[in-house]
Amino acid sequence: MATQELTFYTARGSPFSERVEIAFEEAGVRPTKHFIDLRNKPDWFVSKVNPVGEIPAIAYGGPKVAPENPSPDSVKLAESLVLLEFVSELYPNANLHPKDPVDRARARFFIDASTKVSPFYAFILQGTSSDGFVKALRNLQALLPPGGGWAIGPQFSIADAAFAPFLSRLELYLRNDIGRYDPAEGERVYKLLFESAEFARLQQYWRDIAARPSFKATFDEAFLLDYARAHITRKAPENNST
Amino acid sequence: MATQELTFYTARGSPFSERVEIAFEEAGVRPTKHFIDLRNKPDWFVSKVNPVGEIPAIAYGGPKVAPENPSPDSVKLAESLVLLEFVSELYPNANLHPKDPVDRARARFFIDASTKVSPFYAFILQGTSSDGFVKALRNLQALLPPGGGWAIGPQFSIADAAFAPFLSRLELYLRNDIGRYDPAEGERVYKLLFESAEFARLQQYWRDIAARPSFKATFDEAFLLDYARAHITRKAPENNST
Repeated sequence: MATQELTFYTARGSPFSERVEIAFEEAGVRPTKHFIDLRNKPDWFVSKVNPVGEIPAIAYGGPKVAPENPSPDSVKLAESLVLLEFVSELYPNANLHPKDPVDRARARFFIDASTKVSPFYAFILQGTSSDGFVKALRNLQALLPPGGGWAIGPQFSIADAAFAPFLSRLELYLRNDIGRYDPAEGERVYKLLFESAEFARLQQYWRDIAARPSFKATFDEAFLLDYARAHITRKAPENNST
Repeated sequence: MATQELTFYTARGSPFSERVEIAFEEAGVRPTKHFIDLRNKPDWFVSKVNPVGEIPAIAYGGPKVAPENPSPDSVKLAESLVLLEFVSELYPNANLHPKDPVDRARARFFIDASTKVSPFYAFILQGTSSDGFVKALRNLQALLPPGGGWAIGPQFSIADAAFAPFLSRLELYLRNDIGRYDPAEGERVYKLLFESAEFARLQQYWRDIAARPSFKATFDEAFLLDYARAHITRKAPENNST
């Protein structure tokens, strides 16, 4: 159990932060949280915590200080997958880090495969083709244990914590017709991924994720819906007739 | 020490494979190696080892079989960073995996930052701007311990094994004027990175890498030079006059 000071810099609604928040939840830990306004980043965050200016970030160790005044004596870490592994290792009671090196490798391999689902954001935001992320989800489904269970077996691990924030947003946006894709195409993709027999194993996995307490505690559906509806709007159809 | 069967699928000259080869060298292990012809991939490799068809890959466990006939009972793993961590964990005597979770997080954070140097390939292959990878190298240099040592301190770690194959190729190609960049710009970038005072710490780090036995054993400079000279040729200047 960590006894050092730990400050978690985050932002509401970020799927990257949510990966790390799930790990804290699994560990039963409530870190000192500090929310960063990504549209108006404070100078001290960039100069003293993360030069790249991204959340999530963690300051670990050093004296007890206010989050806005990080100590030079604490280690500053960033990148969600780095932090997910770090928090999982810091709190072994969370059981997120498989004990067997082969299982750890399988978990990291699953995470790598899951990052290939990210073109779904381009589908949502720009209405580009769904081919890339549907193929990535097909590959990912093939990695899931056929009989049931989490990404690499009976134990919920870093692999599930890493992917849950992205699978959930994909499902949420498609189900609510949020995005700049063609509505008929959105409906087709939703039915394919979340209703068709071809993706039955992924659907079972999604139901398991959706029921996991650590996921439920960190997934703010109402906030995400409000935010997405306000920011991801379809253009009115252009009238090109003259 | 691993006692299971292990087959390492690789290809000559790949910087991704070299990351894992360095780990084997540090561990003093000579795995069963099988070279895959990337221009003519055997069907069995895609169907039985890595559906994505990429090297490096590892088959681990199961019965002793020929590399061309992998057993369904072995675990198939891929992605160079996944394999680098796996091999480092499998052979703790290599001392590549820092014992302290904070150091492991720092090593992974360094690796993540080092992947942002990858636009140098676009500079070499297409002559695009050097701004991106020079900035990434500036950020990376800032992470190196000021007084000397490896990426995260006195111990050579996964961070160094992950970055060495890329730093070495950058240096090799620039020093030998290999690439589709403007020759004067190539010379300017080489002098900036490998001779200027601004990058003195990176230069010291590069000298340390170049002298590391595990790097020397895995970096085939003559092969890379021949290969690059044959495949990365500048177009003759176009004559647009009429």
